[in-house]
Amino acid sequence: MTTTAATFDAAAAEASDGGPVVVPVALGDRSYDILIGDGLIGRVGALMAERLPGARAAIVTDANLAGLHLDALEAGLEAAGIASSAIVVAPGEASKSFPVFERVVDAVIGGRFERGDAVVALGGGVVGDLSGFVAGVVRRGMRFVQIPTSLLAQVDSSVGGKTGINVAHGKNLVGVFHQPDLVVADTAALDTLSERHFRAGYAEVAKYGLIDDAGFFAWLEANHGAVFAGGTARTAAIATSCRAKARVVAADERETGERALLNLGHTFGHALEAATGYSDRLVHGEAIAIGMVLAHDFSVRMNLASRDDADRVRAHFSTVGLPTRLADVPGDLPDADGLLKLIGQDKKVARGKLTFILTHGIGQAFIANDVPPSAVTDFLAEAAV
Amino acid sequence: MTTTAATFDAAAAEASDGGPVVVPVALGDRSYDILIGDGLIGRVGALMAERLPGARAAIVTDANLAGLHLDALEAGLEAAGIASSAIVVAPGEASKSFPVFERVVDAVIGGRFERGDAVVALGGGVVGDLSGFVAGVVRRGMRFVQIPTSLLAQVDSSVGGKTGINVAHGKNLVGVFHQPDLVVADTAALDTLSERHFRAGYAEVAKYGLIDDAGFFAWLEANHGAVFAGGTARTAAIATSCRAKARVVAADERETGERALLNLGHTFGHALEAATGYSDRLVHGEAIAIGMVLAHDFSVRMNLASRDDADRVRAHFSTVGLPTRLADVPGDLPDADGLLKLIGQDKKVARGKLTFILTHGIGQAFIANDVPPSAVTDFLAEAAV
Ligand SMILES: NC(=O)c1ccc[n+]([C@@H]2O[C@H](COP(=O)([O-])OP(=O)(O)OC[C@H]3O[C@@H](n4cnc5c(N)ncnc54)[C@H](O)[C@@H]3O)[C@@H](O)[C@H]2O)c1
Ligand SMILES: NC(=O)c1ccc[n+]([C@@H]2O[C@H](COP(=O)([O-])OP(=O)(O)OC[C@H]3O[C@@H](n4cnc5c(N)ncnc54)[C@H](O)[C@@H]3O)[C@@H](O)[C@H]2O)c1
Ligand SMILES: [Zn+2]
Ligand SMILES: [Zn+2]
Repeated sequence: MTTTAATFDAAAAEASDGGPVVVPVALGDRSYDILIGDGLIGRVGALMAERLPGARAAIVTDANLAGLHLDALEAGLEAAGIASSAIVVAPGEASKSFPVFERVVDAVIGGRFERGDAVVALGGGVVGDLSGFVAGVVRRGMRFVQIPTSLLAQVDSSVGGKTGINVAHGKNLVGVFHQPDLVVADTAALDTLSERHFRAGYAEVAKYGLIDDAGFFAWLEANHGAVFAGGTARTAAIATSCRAKARVVAADERETGERALLNLGHTFGHALEAATGYSDRLVHGEAIAIGMVLAHDFSVRMNLASRDDADRVRAHFSTVGLPTRLADVPGDLPDADGLLKLIGQDKKVARGKLTFILTHGIGQAFIANDVPPSAVTDFLAEAAV
Repeated sequence: MTTTAATFDAAAAEASDGGPVVVPVALGDRSYDILIGDGLIGRVGALMAERLPGARAAIVTDANLAGLHLDALEAGLEAAGIASSAIVVAPGEASKSFPVFERVVDAVIGGRFERGDAVVALGGGVVGDLSGFVAGVVRRGMRFVQIPTSLLAQVDSSVGGKTGINVAHGKNLVGVFHQPDLVVADTAALDTLSERHFRAGYAEVAKYGLIDDAGFFAWLEANHGAVFAGGTARTAAIATSCRAKARVVAADERETGERALLNLGHTFGHALEAATGYSDRLVHGEAIAIGMVLAHDFSVRMNLASRDDADRVRAHFSTVGLPTRLADVPGDLPDADGLLKLIGQDKKVARGKLTFILTHGIGQAFIANDVPPSAVTDFLAEAAV
């Protein structure tokens, strides 16, 4: 969906009948819908009864969500006659680990859930990635329902079937592609999300503009206040993001090509997350906000993009309160060589050469497969100043 | 491949040019070949160079194989210019566990193997199932080469893409479907396999006859001596088995239907393996030998098959030295109710009803989805006498 600044139309991203916005993800016999709307958590039971008849629900959630939205989910499931049990993990990235994975696998199997039953992820990207991996491997694949509750999960991690956990060597290095059967994004759930995490998710929203939709980015520059406030602008931003991701995923499910564009800012970003120990020092969306600014700056340095565009990106992220510089990361960071080493451990390495998503300007990202490591260290050494 | 006793032709199962027998597995863009022949381990390097150009090899093997056939594999890889490193696990079913899985995953990632590199399984079904699961999840899927060295692995576990590990709740309950890119079955490797494990693998060979190829079963009744002795009869039996499995897998990759026929004897068998703690008291092939006899006896009891056919099955397995009765299992077993409980935990349970593979006679197995649990306990109580 490439639009120009003049033609981006937020209203077109909404459902006309006041019901949930439906974004189909076209993947042949693995196709599914993303439903976006206000107050949908309580309707998941009815939706499952209709779309996954007979499936019981092995809910996976984190302790934050368990205190906020689990009751509504369980009430709706019960009303629909769907048996469920809930497995609660600790909030935070540390739950995307082997020990927690093993514990959830055991709990799902111990709950006697079968292939036709569904793992139901209620939470942010951490819960979604972890439980999607569980759904992908228990009995070699169970059904899977995502109820993303963070903005990041609603616009990014719940769509597309990438699941996984982290290991000592790096982030998301272990997992499977396992598409959900249904994604239900309740925009009302975002009202309990912290400002910080809303902002972090916003970085992924802006990413879709930066990749190939300059019009959407321009609309965000003008309307970010309304998006943060909630209401129709927020719903429009979420639906536009989901459509953009759905289109890319449908074209390249297994990331053999175009899908890599979604990693804009992520090679730098993952290195920063590794450097800060995947801790609260820097959450994913903050890391990739810096990463996207760096990707634009690096593109300028490689004479690929204009300084003006890179400055617009930095300015917009600053305006909404996202970090944009290495210096914005609290605490010490490794030097340029140390960061390069972390980048090399990132999974977007093809046969020893560095792959980056670079850009010719806002809305003009592309895959660069052969970036010389020395150019990266030189650039990072300057950026660290 | 259904043949009658009169038409089964062992010679037709062999390659005519003296080269390896090639059995194609037709799975669209996941198609691959099984190569069967004498002394192939040393040629895996050349085969990989030709068929998986550029892939490095993360060898996974067990301590027994490491002492017997790893050198030949490594020499061939080196001669072909393929970098490799070997990860050695303990022999035996206990290696199909979360801790070993995690260790191998870490070793593969730590060895900086990438998506385009291959996990190379050198060993029996344990090594194949474990390392196939690793290949399926590291970086969300690496390439995978199987070098099955046990008879069971050559005729069964290396073909079809089922991978996985065991958990406390049961066998193979965690894993993925991950097809290999190449399977190389070196029949010479079987010369170092123990009699006991050769016999256990033979149970799976006979299974293909019992499922839908009465002619093959009759040929085995007449030629088992030659199959055990090695040479062309052994190769013919292996190739016939691989063709049978390849056909079923091609028709039903994800076991939504016909593929379940391959579980003949396995529901009872898995319960016996669970009851004996997956220990050396009873290896997989022995467990399913008993399981297949029980499946025939149970079918007789349900008035589905003739006593004559069931007796032929028991007699043949006895002749080759396989166990055929619950009483043949060394040590104590749970009673009928205890066994039923273990059966219920087996994964071939659909929405609470018991699914068994039953038979109308030799070569006439079918899927029975609605077996009353009480019929099973009654039958087992008698069988235990
Ligand atoms: N699979 C993919 O394609 C993909 C894409 C992008 C990111 N990710 C992954 O997503 C993860 C980050 O996701 P995230 O930012 O959602 O992190 P998260 O799941 O840790 O959620 C952030 C915090 O917000 C809380 N929270 C979530 N929803 C809430 C709500 N409605 N109300 C109150 N609190 C709420 C959580 O408990 C947590 O403390 C990372 O692990 C990243 O790797 C995956
Ligand atoms: N994936 C599938 O479709 C599938 C199908 C059937 C069985 N299986 C699994 O396969 C496993 C059983 O396989 P297995 O019987 O090969 O067990 P195994 O891998 O434990 O091998 C049996 C023993 O023989 C040794 N061995 C193997 N090859 C040898 C050789 N050439 N020379 C000397 N020693 C050798 C091994 O070290 C081991 O001690 C079970 O875990 C079962 O669940 C999987
Ligand atoms: Zn991201
Ligand atoms: Zn078997």
